[in-house]
Parts: sequence; C-alpha cells; structure tokens
Amino acid sequence: MKTAQNDKPIGVFDSGIGGLTVVKRLASVLPNEHIVYFGDTARVPYGSKSNSTVIEYSIQDTNFLLHKNVKLVVVACNTASSIALPELQKKFNVPVIGVIVPGANMAVSETKNGKVGVIGTRATINNQAYSKSIKKLNNNIEVFEKACPLFVPLAEEGWINHRATYEIAEEYLRELKKHHIDILVLGCTHYPILADVIQEVMSHRVKLIDSGVATAEVVKNEIHKRGLETSHSTHGNIDLFVSDIPNKFQEVAELFLGKKVNKPVKVDLEEMVS
Amino acid sequence: MKTAQNDKPIGVFDSGIGGLTVVKRLASVLPNEHIVYFGDTARVPYGSKSNSTVIEYSIQDTNFLLHKNVKLVVVACNTASSIALPELQKKFNVPVIGVIVPGANMAVSETKNGKVGVIGTRATINNQAYSKSIKKLNNNIEVFEKACPLFVPLAEEGWINHRATYEIAEEYLRELKKHHIDILVLGCTHYPILADVIQEVMSHRVKLIDSGVATAEVVKNEIHKRGLETSHSTHGNIDLFVSDIPNKFQEVAELFLGKKVNKPVKVDLEEMVS
Repeated sequence: MKTAQNDKPIGVFDSGIGGLTVVKRLASVLPNEHIVYFGDTARVPYGSKSNSTVIEYSIQDTNFLLHKNVKLVVVACNTASSIALPELQKKFNVPVIGVIVPGANMAVSETKNGKVGVIGTRATINNQAYSKSIKKLNNNIEVFEKACPLFVPLAEEGWINHRATYEIAEEYLRELKKHHIDILVLGCTHYPILADVIQEVMSHRVKLIDSGVATAEVVKNEIHKRGLETSHSTHGNIDLFVSDIPNKFQEVAELFLGKKVNKPVKVDLEEMVS
Repeated sequence: MKTAQNDKPIGVFDSGIGGLTVVKRLASVLPNEHIVYFGDTARVPYGSKSNSTVIEYSIQDTNFLLHKNVKLVVVACNTASSIALPELQKKFNVPVIGVIVPGANMAVSETKNGKVGVIGTRATINNQAYSKSIKKLNNNIEVFEKACPLFVPLAEEGWINHRATYEIAEEYLRELKKHHIDILVLGCTHYPILADVIQEVMSHRVKLIDSGVATAEVVKNEIHKRGLETSHSTHGNIDLFVSDIPNKFQEVAELFLGKKVNKPVKVDLEEMVS
C-alpha cells in the first residue's frame, strides 16, 4: 500500500496562527512526522463565539484535516479544546487530542506546594477550563487564574522584548506572585512567545508549563501506543493551510514556529463547509 | 401619525463596541435624538474578513436597524465604511453615513502644512481608506499612515493612563513625528479613548481629528438638510443591541460612551439573518 496508515500526516488545527507554537513542539519530539496545519484565520477568534458555533467550526476544521488524510488530530486551540473536544472525539474515529488536559496533567504532576497559576485569554479563564481540569485530577490543589488579554496582540506584534511588554506582564502577574504559586500554566498558544518576559517577571522559582510541550508528549505517547509511528527516517514536512492570509502572516508564523515556513495555502471556507 | 418620520431614531452599527465613541459624539451634538445602536460583538472583528463577508454582515446589520424603524443609518466602523458603504447606499432608501469621508474632509480642511497622519487598525491602513479619500479631495496633501494594532486591546482594557500605553504610543508614533504632520486622524473608533496619551506623545502642535466628531457634524447637517430633526425637547434614549454580551461589556461600554448604559439586549444572529 502506497500510503500506509503510519505514514499519514498528523493534523493540527487552531482558530488562527497561535497553534504553530504547538506544531513547533510536535516537530521537536516527532521530527520525522509529516504535519498538516489548518489555521481558521478568517474566523479568528473563537473565544468570543457561542459554544454551538465553536463546535460547528471545529467539526469543519477536523473534516478538512481528515480530507488531508491525517492519522490523528490535535486541537491546538484552548477555546476549541475546552468546548468542542468531547463532540469531536465522539464524531470522528481518529484520535483527537486537545491542549488543556495535557497542560493540566503536567501542572498537577509538577507542583510541589500545590499552588498553581493559570494565565489565558478572557474566554479560557472565564470558562475555568484549566482549573476544572486540574481540580478533577487533584481537588486539593489551589488554582489561581488571570486573564491577560494584551499578551496575544503583543505576541503577534513580535514585541517579545519590549519595555512595554515587561510593564504589562508586571501588572497582569502581580496578584499571582502574591499567591506564591510554583507552577504557571501558559494557557494560550500565543504565550510561549512571551515566555522569557513572563519567566523574568515571575522569577525563576516558578516553573512555566507550555501546554504545547505537554500536548506534544501526549501525542507522542498516543502514536507509540497505537503503533502509528512514521516509517520515514528524514525530517517531515509542515504544510500550512489557512482560511485567510492576513498581512504579516509569514513573519508572525515564523516567529511562532521558530523557523522558515513555506507560503500557506488559502482554503475557501465555502468549499470547506459544503 | 403616532411616530412621525422626524421622531424615528437614528441607527448606528459597528462590528463591536468601538462605535460607542461615535454615539457619544452624536448624543452631544443631537442630544434630543433617540439612538439605536447595534454592535456585532459575536462576529467582531470585521477587519480580518473578506470584502464579500463584510458587505453581507453590514447589510444584515442595516436591516436590523431598519426593523427598529430608524430614519438614518451611521456606519460607525472603519472597515465597514471603507468596504460596504456604496452597497448600503445603493440598497437602502434611508441616508447611510460612514466615518471615513467625514474624517478625511475635516483633515483636509484643517491642515495648514499639507502633512496629514492617519492611524488605524491594520485593515484600515492596508486598505488606505483614509489616504485615498484625502487624496481625492486634495491630491497635494501628503498622507502618512501607521497601523497601531495594540491600541484596540489597550482601550478595551481601559489602560488609558498606563505607563505601558505611553511607551507603546511612543513606538508607534515615532515615524509620524519625524514627518512633521500637523493633523493626526484617529482612524479607528477605539482610539479616542487613548486621545490624551496620543496628544501628549505627538505634542500639542498636532491637532487630533476624531472621525466620530466629524461624522456627528455630518449627521447633524444631513438631518437638518432633510428636515428630519426630532420634535422632542427632552434628552433622547440610547438603546443598545448586541449579537453577544462579552465579559466586561458594561464596563467597557461605559468607558466608550462616557456615561452609564442600560443593560444591552442580546440579538439572536440566526433570527437576524433569516
């Protein structure tokens, strides 16, 4: 058979380009796997949309990836992971992995003093996606959450080292520092871009957890468990598909992925839906 | 007749809540007029969407306002004004007024040295909506444009006086300062919230033009010209309708409108479309 099940790509979708930080981690732990990424840039952000709309879009995104013949789907979007994951896992017969449970799991296993901080977009924090997930694993852990809405546009501007970014981080993280957390979950795919600033502001006594790193480990284990490892011994490709090509896409994508990217292919939403 | 044409409300729509800064100006020059506002908060932002989608949504928004029996429609959204205005003016038989031509007109009439700056979202600046409009009025005017993507989230956070906001403004406005402009058009409905910071960074030799102020004057003249002034001699109401009620809506709406607001009414998009 020409395309054995093992040599199919891994599919990843996100509401936009933030999920490329997850792809970066996947490509690092599974370098030979071929990855197909879909960013729904025409309909970003999902965080302000109703649950039924987020589920509908997530199903469309997954269907697109399945048409690309993927063997496994990663939901690299916190909003879609918190709202649509059960529906996707029920509806599709490939493994579907989100970013929240892996991040929560890692936080629970790494905390020493039982005080965990979580930062994310307003939608993720309001849904208490991480704290519910952490409490389910260990109800004794105290979780402190804080929405940091300016971090996404700061990351997209590429202001990873700007004085304003430090000042904004100081303001957002002030309360979390008071609670003496020892773990801080970066609960938004954009935030790893600002990890250096966040680490400096929180001090090196606090360990940052990148949900992308945790998710990549879970994907690696899942692939191993199911015997789905690629037979290729050379570096896999990363193919980018988006529903709109925003200005500065290439520049931001390269910042997020940490390396050069090919021009993305624009997908027509009308065709995707039908 | 119970509802004379004159006593119908003025309709205003925007992709979100930024248009409330325009409502603030309208209510100031036309205090007795009743205003109906629709903010498409479930589908914000329009700036990243295709032209055909922006036109489709703008038609739906206008239809909603016409069902509320408005006598005139204000498109208080720079993206919709630059893309959908001709279509709306062709399709509907009430006057439809956008924010770009009034802002461009005021810039042209107020500049003394012929050097005008324009700041806006990436979409507005990439479309060159203001510079085209200004050049059409006077081709000799030099227009310098700069996208300031962080200003919208800063305004929505209410960080109107934060040190980080000054630093971000310094960075964005550095080039415009070098060009010795004497007029700066605030080409995004969110920016008037940050006017004090922008004014301080640009120095008091530069006059800021709030498109909302310019638009309110145009609306006042249009209503006068058509003999559509309300007969009421008491303060008009402002009714808010939105397609989604985001967290912190009340707080942000009051910052933008400059006074207390009633709870908004959530409109079901499905019903709007059908």
